[in-house]
Amino acid sequence: MRFFSDNAAAAHPKVIEAIAASNRLDTAYDGDEWSQRLDDAFSELFEKEVRASWVATGTAANCLGLAALCPPYRAILCHRDAHIEVDEAGAPGFFTGGAKLILLDGPGAKVAPDAVAAACNAIRADVHQVQPAALSITNATEYGLVYRGSEVAELGKLAKERGLAFHMDGARFANALAATGESPADVTWRAGVDVLSFGFTKNGGLNAEALVLFKTELAEEIAVRRKRAGHLASKGRMLAAQILAMLDDNLWLDNARAANAAAQALGKAVPDRLIHPVEANELFLRVSDEEAARLRAQGADFYEWGPGQIRFVTSWDSDDRSVDKLAAALATL
Amino acid sequence: MRFFSDNAAAAHPKVIEAIAASNRLDTAYDGDEWSQRLDDAFSELFEKEVRASWVATGTAANCLGLAALCPPYRAILCHRDAHIEVDEAGAPGFFTGGAKLILLDGPGAKVAPDAVAAACNAIRADVHQVQPAALSITNATEYGLVYRGSEVAELGKLAKERGLAFHMDGARFANALAATGESPADVTWRAGVDVLSFGFTKNGGLNAEALVLFKTELAEEIAVRRKRAGHLASKGRMLAAQILAMLDDNLWLDNARAANAAAQALGKAVPDRLIHPVEANELFLRVSDEEAARLRAQGADFYEWGPGQIRFVTSWDSDDRSVDKLAAALATL
Amino acid sequence: MRFFSDNAAAAHPKVIEAIAASNRLDTAYDGDEWSQRLDDAFSELFEKEVRASWVATGTAANCLGLAALCPPYRAILCHRDAHIEVDEAGAPGFFTGGAKLILLDGPGAKVAPDAVAAACNAIRADVHQVQPAALSITNATEYGLVYRGSEVAELGKLAKERGLAFHMDGARFANALAATGESPADVTWRAGVDVLSFGFTKNGGLNAEALVLFKTELAEEIAVRRKRAGHLASKGRMLAAQILAMLDDNLWLDNARAANAAAQALGKAVPDRLIHPVEANELFLRVSDEEAARLRAQGADFYEWGPGQIRFVTSWDSDDRSVDKLAAALATL
Amino acid sequence: MRFFSDNAAAAHPKVIEAIAASNRLDTAYDGDEWSQRLDDAFSELFEKEVRASWVATGTAANCLGLAALCPPYRAILCHRDAHIEVDEAGAPGFFTGGAKLILLDGPGAKVAPDAVAAACNAIRADVHQVQPAALSITNATEYGLVYRGSEVAELGKLAKERGLAFHMDGARFANALAATGESPADVTWRAGVDVLSFGFTKNGGLNAEALVLFKTELAEEIAVRRKRAGHLASKGRMLAAQILAMLDDNLWLDNARAANAAAQALGKAVPDRLIHPVEANELFLRVSDEEAARLRAQGADFYEWGPGQIRFVTSWDSDDRSVDKLAAALATL
Repeated sequence: MRFFSDNAAAAHPKVIEAIAASNRLDTAYDGDEWSQRLDDAFSELFEKEVRASWVATGTAANCLGLAALCPPYRAILCHRDAHIEVDEAGAPGFFTGGAKLILLDGPGAKVAPDAVAAACNAIRADVHQVQPAALSITNATEYGLVYRGSEVAELGKLAKERGLAFHMDGARFANALAATGESPADVTWRAGVDVLSFGFTKNGGLNAEALVLFKTELAEEIAVRRKRAGHLASKGRMLAAQILAMLDDNLWLDNARAANAAAQALGKAVPDRLIHPVEANELFLRVSDEEAARLRAQGADFYEWGPGQIRFVTSWDSDDRSVDKLAAALATL
Repeated sequence: MRFFSDNAAAAHPKVIEAIAASNRLDTAYDGDEWSQRLDDAFSELFEKEVRASWVATGTAANCLGLAALCPPYRAILCHRDAHIEVDEAGAPGFFTGGAKLILLDGPGAKVAPDAVAAACNAIRADVHQVQPAALSITNATEYGLVYRGSEVAELGKLAKERGLAFHMDGARFANALAATGESPADVTWRAGVDVLSFGFTKNGGLNAEALVLFKTELAEEIAVRRKRAGHLASKGRMLAAQILAMLDDNLWLDNARAANAAAQALGKAVPDRLIHPVEANELFLRVSDEEAARLRAQGADFYEWGPGQIRFVTSWDSDDRSVDKLAAALATL
Repeated sequence: MRFFSDNAAAAHPKVIEAIAASNRLDTAYDGDEWSQRLDDAFSELFEKEVRASWVATGTAANCLGLAALCPPYRAILCHRDAHIEVDEAGAPGFFTGGAKLILLDGPGAKVAPDAVAAACNAIRADVHQVQPAALSITNATEYGLVYRGSEVAELGKLAKERGLAFHMDGARFANALAATGESPADVTWRAGVDVLSFGFTKNGGLNAEALVLFKTELAEEIAVRRKRAGHLASKGRMLAAQILAMLDDNLWLDNARAANAAAQALGKAVPDRLIHPVEANELFLRVSDEEAARLRAQGADFYEWGPGQIRFVTSWDSDDRSVDKLAAALATL
Repeated sequence: MRFFSDNAAAAHPKVIEAIAASNRLDTAYDGDEWSQRLDDAFSELFEKEVRASWVATGTAANCLGLAALCPPYRAILCHRDAHIEVDEAGAPGFFTGGAKLILLDGPGAKVAPDAVAAACNAIRADVHQVQPAALSITNATEYGLVYRGSEVAELGKLAKERGLAFHMDGARFANALAATGESPADVTWRAGVDVLSFGFTKNGGLNAEALVLFKTELAEEIAVRRKRAGHLASKGRMLAAQILAMLDDNLWLDNARAANAAAQALGKAVPDRLIHPVEANELFLRVSDEEAARLRAQGADFYEWGPGQIRFVTSWDSDDRSVDKLAAALATL
């Protein structure tokens, strides 16, 4: 019953096969045939001409994107619990050259338009205060909540009015779309998103994320920044091949659906313990220390989120037996 | 006859197997069993307690190491043709926060003690001029020359006298050792090297390099910098497994020997065209444009290094037939 | 009745005289006789061997000091209303190379030990979260409150326990000391402070602040960073002369006492409107828009701090007539 | 006979008077009446609408300007002996966030179009090599040579063709113009210069330089960067007043003419010892150690530039007696 993190799951067999199949001499860096297919593959998926690059980690995807959207002397608005603030070791400061994160509050790590507007309004328009340049949201959020296209669009509209670029950390973008059934386009560029970190690693990839640029004119800068950050792999075909395998036949969506379904099953077992609604593939539960210990004793692995709170994350390969067993254990709480 | 770059070669089958074999749920980042074995594996190889981390690219290995050795306001001495100066998109400036590279001359991209001393002597010891903090050499060099342990030791001694940390870019470290038969220890820490970028990707790995710290007290800082640079892969076991597969039964040395042997075979076919002696797995030849075109017409793939110069790089999987065919073609020049 | 900011006040005549008197050819940068006297002058004042450098602005003093105390990949704890967070255009991020500010709450912009401990405790000790390296407090605070030596010492003790360097932004250090009568030593190094930005500009200087290092081993790094930031003035004697003039006969203390006295006089006129106790040279008052307008109509100049709040700052040259007139106007509210 | 550096000279009495005259309460930062007059004053001088800001040092002027012209991941072309490379402690790396300086050769620290073109041509247009973004020249050069408008225009044309922004370090801009009699406009924006560091400190100012933007759209970014670098003085009127005093009645030109005339007088005394032609206010002489010692024994103060080379710098206040005495001493060499 290992539900500690989707980070730790195995990669999907098709991903491993794709790596093996791409393992032959080809042009280095991203000149190979797999890397060269990414722009088209994502353009088709997003119903729009986009530019897409592989990178090896979500932190790299997020921070390369943000560095292209926010100069060193301005700020990025994000939720107080956003991954870029809490779990990336200050990478936004490193990649941007010192830009500031301005932290917003809101339940479930979700950013509401009001919070964005209030934060902007609190900043004097002078050289003494750091002016915001970008807004970043995480979809699904760090608490497993999902933005609908209409919610994103409200934020996108506000971002435009305020002159803010708009970034989406989609480490669990697949889970978000699997939850709502909305189209990739509706939740991103049609709603005003400029740059998307499209995560695959948590969802069955091995170590590949896609940085998708709806603002295609950023592609050249991103390419240079990726190299400069040591993120231009010489055998990049192996990253591209993973992504293409995930896109093939909508494996990414099938995987996310499986993870979400497992989370739903668990959530139904303990509806009254849920701290946040279960929308994607994460559950946050209120438990006593004694209860947590009991769960561990039964073989459950999970993250101690905070005092009296635990987190379970399901993944594409959460097996029915483990899910059923954990659901049963949770039901006895 | 593809000899464009060892960067572009396939990974060794054992490396792919190792990735597949490590593809199961384990602790994320570098808490898994493979990653946890790296310190011991490299300590054994180097006959000394070292700390070793996987990273995905040579640029990341070099620049994470250099950032830990050189503060933003000081300089790194390196050869004018060093990879960190010429081919990393300014990554040292990015990772260090603006440190300067001071460029040294010397045949074959090799750094001589005299050049280091002269460069240091030319710097006034005041706050107006940037003071050097580190020396970086590449072994084998960008022109395929190899430092013997005694040569490294001379540089190491000088570095110590001048208060310089000492970094070795070992993107082709395996080829260097295969050429001389010296021990890893003799060419590195026994000769004064503090940090080594130990390359595997060009030598049969897929995308894994090891950053080996002989100065073990840097390990904590390196770990933070790696995360901050987006280089802490969540499924890091897949990087560790590659490296362990390469170390197993000295696959790294066998691969390098094969590449070097192929280079020797090619070099013997055109001894009078060689711009540099062939010591590792690279050949630089003087050819006319017409000759270069003729080689291409015969199916040879190579790098046009500069006016009248071409480069061939052999790799672990350079097959005998291609080598023989190219050697024959070269012999007719 | 201009009480907008002590930033805007004139310099004391003795400061201008000192500049004129130092206006002759001497060694450039800080080799001149005035600059060379700073270490001794401050060592005497602080009853301890210190190293002291002039810089032209408080932002430079703060951020040079912080850059020497906090590496790019760690964090500085400070109050949410601290000048370094709110009014320095992100300079800490620039000077440190991307370090993070972790914001603490507390009335009157004062940092309490509990807040520091709680913030530290909330950080997981891993590479994903940014670990704190320094604590910075402002004395007098941005709301005119003053730390006693004993309060600083409590923070200093905690900082030491937590492995944090300790910086004091003393833009209004003179006003703080004038308020309590404590000694410079007791409020700084004896209480654990490592680096002090000792402000003179707001207190009768023209454009000179002193960066005082109790941790004298930082002096060399600070000197390089000052030059690198474009803060090593070629005619630095003119900055040193200002500071020496201010130290001479305790002009700095006399000036601060005058400013504080004016603030006390104003505060007594409107005790029930005060948002914070008046301890140094600032007053924050609750007023309605209509009242604010009435004060303006009477010729008062002040800062609109926020909805329903206004700020008055007295300075060394606040003249009795203006103070009396304003006190009278305030009394009628 | 103190000719060590114009850096060390006294400020002109009118500059000190101007500081004293501006020493009264006014709006802080650059909202005061003096600072507000700079744009107009420089627009008139340059016969074009420009934006001008005071800064306290030449390093700050140069590097703020360069940071606005060159992103962190690109390069600045400059002479190997340029002040930004040799004497600013790596400040360009700090202000730009890690941009690279590409060093050009050329006699007298002068940059020739051929050198620029050759450097650009040597860079592969890919993501591995750092692409140039800006060209920076120093006028007068570090060896006292002067660019004519036509020479600058050739460089400006080339810069435009190559997509390079164009910066002029005019630490001794006044001396350059005094030498040729050309107009400020002809040597700068009419010749393609985008940003000028216009020096006053070496020419009779106390600590004020002007950063003049011909590309006026950079003004907002420069203002933020200036604050962020700790270079927004709160009593900026004192810097503005210096500059206005220097512009008044062409004091800047008169001062430069005086310095240049002194240099000419010295140069005529030792025509055969000159390493570079004397065009502005610097002389570089070939002398033996014995001769240098003899000059020192006679009371001459100068800079030992290198083996067998000494430098004299005249300044606005070089008095006739000292000049005559030194000329006589030089004539006896």
